[in-house]
Amino acid sequence: MLKNNIETFLECDKEYNEAEIVLFGAPFDSTTSFRPGTRFGSSAVRHESYGLESYSPYQDKDLRDCKIMDSGDLELSFGNTKSALTDIYHRTALILKDKKLPFMVGGEHLVTLGAFRAVWEQYPEVCIIHFDAHADLREEYLDAKLSHACVLRRCWEMTGDGKIHQFGIRSGDRDEFYWAKEHVKMQKFSFDGLEEALEELKGKPVYFTVDLDVMDPSVFPGTGTPEPGGVSFDELRRAATSVCEKANVVGCDVNELSPHYDQSGASTAAAGKIIREMLLALSKK
Amino acid sequence: MLKNNIETFLECDKEYNEAEIVLFGAPFDSTTSFRPGTRFGSSAVRHESYGLESYSPYQDKDLRDCKIMDSGDLELSFGNTKSALTDIYHRTALILKDKKLPFMVGGEHLVTLGAFRAVWEQYPEVCIIHFDAHADLREEYLDAKLSHACVLRRCWEMTGDGKIHQFGIRSGDRDEFYWAKEHVKMQKFSFDGLEEALEELKGKPVYFTVDLDVMDPSVFPGTGTPEPGGVSFDELRRAATSVCEKANVVGCDVNELSPHYDQSGASTAAAGKIIREMLLALSKK
Amino acid sequence: MLKNNIETFLECDKEYNEAEIVLFGAPFDSTTSFRPGTRFGSSAVRHESYGLESYSPYQDKDLRDCKIMDSGDLELSFGNTKSALTDIYHRTALILKDKKLPFMVGGEHLVTLGAFRAVWEQYPEVCIIHFDAHADLREEYLDAKLSHACVLRRCWEMTGDGKIHQFGIRSGDRDEFYWAKEHVKMQKFSFDGLEEALEELKGKPVYFTVDLDVMDPSVFPGTGTPEPGGVSFDELRRAATSVCEKANVVGCDVNELSPHYDQSGASTAAAGKIIREMLLALSKK
Amino acid sequence: MLKNNIETFLECDKEYNEAEIVLFGAPFDSTTSFRPGTRFGSSAVRHESYGLESYSPYQDKDLRDCKIMDSGDLELSFGNTKSALTDIYHRTALILKDKKLPFMVGGEHLVTLGAFRAVWEQYPEVCIIHFDAHADLREEYLDAKLSHACVLRRCWEMTGDGKIHQFGIRSGDRDEFYWAKEHVKMQKFSFDGLEEALEELKGKPVYFTVDLDVMDPSVFPGTGTPEPGGVSFDELRRAATSVCEKANVVGCDVNELSPHYDQSGASTAAAGKIIREMLLALSKK
Amino acid sequence: MLKNNIETFLECDKEYNEAEIVLFGAPFDSTTSFRPGTRFGSSAVRHESYGLESYSPYQDKDLRDCKIMDSGDLELSFGNTKSALTDIYHRTALILKDKKLPFMVGGEHLVTLGAFRAVWEQYPEVCIIHFDAHADLREEYLDAKLSHACVLRRCWEMTGDGKIHQFGIRSGDRDEFYWAKEHVKMQKFSFDGLEEALEELKGKPVYFTVDLDVMDPSVFPGTGTPEPGGVSFDELRRAATSVCEKANVVGCDVNELSPHYDQSGASTAAAGKIIREMLLALSKK
Amino acid sequence: MLKNNIETFLECDKEYNEAEIVLFGAPFDSTTSFRPGTRFGSSAVRHESYGLESYSPYQDKDLRDCKIMDSGDLELSFGNTKSALTDIYHRTALILKDKKLPFMVGGEHLVTLGAFRAVWEQYPEVCIIHFDAHADLREEYLDAKLSHACVLRRCWEMTGDGKIHQFGIRSGDRDEFYWAKEHVKMQKFSFDGLEEALEELKGKPVYFTVDLDVMDPSVFPGTGTPEPGGVSFDELRRAATSVCEKANVVGCDVNELSPHYDQSGASTAAAGKIIREMLLALSKK
Repeated sequence: MLKNNIETFLECDKEYNEAEIVLFGAPFDSTTSFRPGTRFGSSAVRHESYGLESYSPYQDKDLRDCKIMDSGDLELSFGNTKSALTDIYHRTALILKDKKLPFMVGGEHLVTLGAFRAVWEQYPEVCIIHFDAHADLREEYLDAKLSHACVLRRCWEMTGDGKIHQFGIRSGDRDEFYWAKEHVKMQKFSFDGLEEALEELKGKPVYFTVDLDVMDPSVFPGTGTPEPGGVSFDELRRAATSVCEKANVVGCDVNELSPHYDQSGASTAAAGKIIREMLLALSKK
Repeated sequence: MLKNNIETFLECDKEYNEAEIVLFGAPFDSTTSFRPGTRFGSSAVRHESYGLESYSPYQDKDLRDCKIMDSGDLELSFGNTKSALTDIYHRTALILKDKKLPFMVGGEHLVTLGAFRAVWEQYPEVCIIHFDAHADLREEYLDAKLSHACVLRRCWEMTGDGKIHQFGIRSGDRDEFYWAKEHVKMQKFSFDGLEEALEELKGKPVYFTVDLDVMDPSVFPGTGTPEPGGVSFDELRRAATSVCEKANVVGCDVNELSPHYDQSGASTAAAGKIIREMLLALSKK
Repeated sequence: MLKNNIETFLECDKEYNEAEIVLFGAPFDSTTSFRPGTRFGSSAVRHESYGLESYSPYQDKDLRDCKIMDSGDLELSFGNTKSALTDIYHRTALILKDKKLPFMVGGEHLVTLGAFRAVWEQYPEVCIIHFDAHADLREEYLDAKLSHACVLRRCWEMTGDGKIHQFGIRSGDRDEFYWAKEHVKMQKFSFDGLEEALEELKGKPVYFTVDLDVMDPSVFPGTGTPEPGGVSFDELRRAATSVCEKANVVGCDVNELSPHYDQSGASTAAAGKIIREMLLALSKK
Repeated sequence: MLKNNIETFLECDKEYNEAEIVLFGAPFDSTTSFRPGTRFGSSAVRHESYGLESYSPYQDKDLRDCKIMDSGDLELSFGNTKSALTDIYHRTALILKDKKLPFMVGGEHLVTLGAFRAVWEQYPEVCIIHFDAHADLREEYLDAKLSHACVLRRCWEMTGDGKIHQFGIRSGDRDEFYWAKEHVKMQKFSFDGLEEALEELKGKPVYFTVDLDVMDPSVFPGTGTPEPGGVSFDELRRAATSVCEKANVVGCDVNELSPHYDQSGASTAAAGKIIREMLLALSKK
Repeated sequence: MLKNNIETFLECDKEYNEAEIVLFGAPFDSTTSFRPGTRFGSSAVRHESYGLESYSPYQDKDLRDCKIMDSGDLELSFGNTKSALTDIYHRTALILKDKKLPFMVGGEHLVTLGAFRAVWEQYPEVCIIHFDAHADLREEYLDAKLSHACVLRRCWEMTGDGKIHQFGIRSGDRDEFYWAKEHVKMQKFSFDGLEEALEELKGKPVYFTVDLDVMDPSVFPGTGTPEPGGVSFDELRRAATSVCEKANVVGCDVNELSPHYDQSGASTAAAGKIIREMLLALSKK
Repeated sequence: MLKNNIETFLECDKEYNEAEIVLFGAPFDSTTSFRPGTRFGSSAVRHESYGLESYSPYQDKDLRDCKIMDSGDLELSFGNTKSALTDIYHRTALILKDKKLPFMVGGEHLVTLGAFRAVWEQYPEVCIIHFDAHADLREEYLDAKLSHACVLRRCWEMTGDGKIHQFGIRSGDRDEFYWAKEHVKMQKFSFDGLEEALEELKGKPVYFTVDLDVMDPSVFPGTGTPEPGGVSFDELRRAATSVCEKANVVGCDVNELSPHYDQSGASTAAAGKIIREMLLALSKK
């Protein structure tokens, strides 16, 4: 008997009950100030994963062997930011409650706020590892506090000082960089110091949020605000794998793919491979 | 002495004091549910107007002879719908207070709500002529009442029954079409009956709102939700000219150009020519 | 408990057992001689149907009320034409065996051959109604008999003379047009004579195959071989609705959407609306 | 023995000696003021003609039976307008000297000036039939007399009053339209009056220049300055065929395809089919 | 007297008799499983070579001084894989018979099989140097043995173990990587060990096949299956030059350019420069 | 009271009187021989600067603190090269006369000639630092001496031998490279030797001209003639900053952005950031 059409990210087709990691998409970009389009990110990465292999020659591991479920995209309200964040919060909380690892694919970076709130409620001591081109530390942006440009500032209001570790930052206004010196640990331009941070965080719960625009636009042009001068794919791949292998990741997200800005599909492929490598590294535990 | 760089729509470079019509852009698309991008509409139509002539062989009139000012784009908050609508309301109210005609270029169709509210406060008897592919009459959409899909419903809450005249409608859910029968005057698919409506509205204040997707996607593919089966450019040009010549238009807007979806520039050119013809027809008075 | 991600065409989410019509995609374009890409047609039309309404103001009917199931895309072999056609044949035969109507979405036009063979085996008297820009009547093309350019010729080998009714044809080589005079009923350029043909075919089993490039490239540029001079969207909509309402359709297909050639999405929207109107008209029975 | 790679427009592969019509490309766009790119027009139409048929069901004729040669593209100087026009002049004069019909494919419309000068020297009584969206009658444009926007004005300096018949014009500045009333015969917006003009010109030598932007951007978006409100493909096809069948055409050109602005290829296909129909109609004599 | 239009790759316009190297295009992509389009590769690289210089500052050599002929593209059957491979085989065998070096430009990677078979028949001891992102070592793929994903496996059936040297491989399924350990020499991710391999192969006949997707998608997005994490242009340029200078290359090919996926033209330029450098290096002998 | 719409590059909105640096655009590309489009460069970089920050974390400086004015784009004659260069000359001379630094944004590289002539008249001893992929040293190109491919040769006619320092050159014909050995200082492929050159030029007046295609097409595909093998964004950023900090720059330009060839916007962003870093480094004095 024929079945309804099921689409999942690359072999992540396990049933919920047996899954250890649960993916979901958060297609939201209402607060994007420059160029929208990240709402198409999660479905593009799922759809185009058909062109990727489930096996990684980097880690010699295969997603077929992993207990991962893709639960599809949330249907979020455009133009009602609070409602969208609440829906994300509930999905994340549900997955955590069932002792599974939530893995969210954005969407603009603001979606992190919904997921992180659920994680923080369960793990009040949680730290954040944040890869990004942008600091995202504004108090307010264009008359909105719930904005992609403020998302780490909102997270900081939960964690307090010293819990957020930023890497690769190369853009922001002056105030953000000066504020950061007092309140977070920021590594500009690169992943230098990541291994030391992982050593320091050993055993502690970590939320890992990856804004893919940390990569250089040469390899990842498909994003809303391209910022030349970023890291290479291999630098991100190695750094993200390292976090997933060594840290006690209790929640994570990957965001800011805006696939329409790169009609070659290379950006979507890069996003897909980063997600694959992260999933494989997380699955080892 | 050199001057700062000024950009205006096609010869609409008069000073505010002498202007009879005042254009402004409302670059907002946060509630767009399918494909965003209308935020780029107003600046594209301004920028690309360089390729158009200010003279219309249809009306044998020239924008150089008209008293029109382009006051640029508002800077609106993405992700904070209420704040954006308030800013639009204030700009419109200011122009009305100074006895000038406000002409807004969107942006998504929700921006009409901010402008219409200011018009309605000044002209409580105002009627609406609405050209669109979509009915936009939903009570609520995706958990939001302030949504492009609800904008005429929100206007109806101000005007009451029988004041909204819709033309060209060819898409919506069943409830909208059934609700419309009771509360508004809807002409499906075409402009049939427009001249009769104009006769009926003679002398009354009219707000005129044009969703450019009333045109067929063949001539206007650059929009968020293309709906095959629409009117031609010439049909829209004639109908819009007729409204501007014959009705007592006290405010108007043109919206839903999403220029990135049509890299040929033909959609932006079509929008620009419709705006030119409307301005010329409005200027005659 | 969360479910795996299901994607279907516009509300066609019924279970197989209750469905009267069963959609499936045939993503194949290996014999396309000019520009490939129709392999992306069926998944694009499914994916982008999110932007369409399930309700038709043309027919005042809603897909929510119809018993239709979307069984997803077949996984076909590229470069092995026979194997691909066999897979299509089996899917069609299965649906027919279960007394349901097969509705295939291509893919290049050659896919019709697999589906039609199954239909013809069950209904040896079946006639064909064929909408297309191209005659597709070649004996052989580029050293291949199993080619999109030969597909109706292959069908004719089953039906024999006088059973194939072609409409809208405006391209082919001289031999095809001359051969057609002897063996099929061809209406060049338009749908003239369609109502008479439907009258003539009343009660007989009909296979209905729609090559979307029968539409003019202005409204449907997203196809492999654009042929200016075609019919409008409304002409096709009315003609296709008429066939589905009046003929005894026992199988049908819609093909040759190549979505990447139209980045505006208007072609995909046109394909989706034609499919919607056909499904609604077929469902009435 | 293998041969070097030869590329010609659709079966126009006869040797020069036997040819009655000689095509050549004039890839020049240096004076284009809005959006350049017509330099790619002639090679695109040649290259993409692979997707067209040489047989026309409209005329029931085949280019295989015609004595036509494609002599390729001239290599013109960008930035040296005079030099480019001189090269075009010499190529045209050579073809005329050998009693063949020159058929030029642009490039921007200014290229007409080089070809027409050669034709006018040989036929001082020559009239012009001009299809275009734009009047091209300016005395000077952006500090240049040799500009696409002035090309028919420059031709008028040779022909004198009353020899230029314009059709389809829908854009220009006011002065052009007023000047035209005195000096040329202009039909705005349509081909109305064409048959009468052909009757009047019977037997006289005619230069036929087709700016493809006379077509509506819906069917021909691939041009530098899209002007909504134009004629359909079928209107142009019929009008151009009529001129080529009924007038004594002694030289002609087709220009202003800018293929990069239409990635669907539909504009290039439209240009190719218009050229095919013109060549077939011209070949009948 | 005017000549028919000849198009060749960058100065490769010698007559067949005097040529030492003979280029030909193999525009075939019927078995491509993810995104087709490499059929346009050879003609794009020829057409766009107009933008390249024939002189290489890397090698201080000029293609004008080389005896190279471009014999154009084969006309291959889409959808009939065997027929296409046979045509490629015959073209290659003809060039070899005349003691010239065949240099094929794809097309998808499967075209290598036709050319290699001809080379292997003449040089049964031939080894292969293979640059690629993908291992292409599958026994069967999507029900086809003649697939791009199996092409090196098919070659191995001729050469036997240890004759195939792969470099840059970063994608494949697990079985391919494990099978490779037994049967071929695979260098993952980079060109490490290339100089040693060239030393080992000194004097032996070598077939050199370059899948351009060995380059990172940042510099070469124009390909069917982008695989982030590849080598840079300069790494490939140096490695390919080295093979052509130091090995006894008796046949070679460059494939997998899919130009439509990179509208900037940078991928086509990269392909053209790699081919130029290879031709210059091969010509020295 | 509302004001006309003003658009400037990133905070460069000072009045002319107070400005120390004056930007202007030179939108000209008439002599471009391969692919035109740089005419859109200056307005694109201005328009898209909305997506950049005015603060640089590299230099810890902010454009808000700098005295810079953007005076908009010149309106140049397409097709009349001399007239265009004269207009550029006059704008540059005016700015120099008022003791301000002219900063021109192209346009094609030929525009440098107009600006440099004005600078050279005021500083006859001026040297040139030239970053480019192409040597631009031809005596003549396609029958034109005023061509982008000859611009540095024309400058050399003013400066004489040994005054032009070229970096990053990787393309040209053989004659250019041989001629360069006698007359200019050329560093192929890289910025090696830049610091030594800056040391040598200390205190002397320097004109600094940056052809952005010196960057690799991976990070800067949006240019007319992509040349793989270039420098990275960070290499250019560091080198350009170094020149602006250490040399006595009396005039400069940045050119050859052709934004339409990179629809991701990454090239425009790269151009904008290079300009920002140059302005910040120049402002320090």
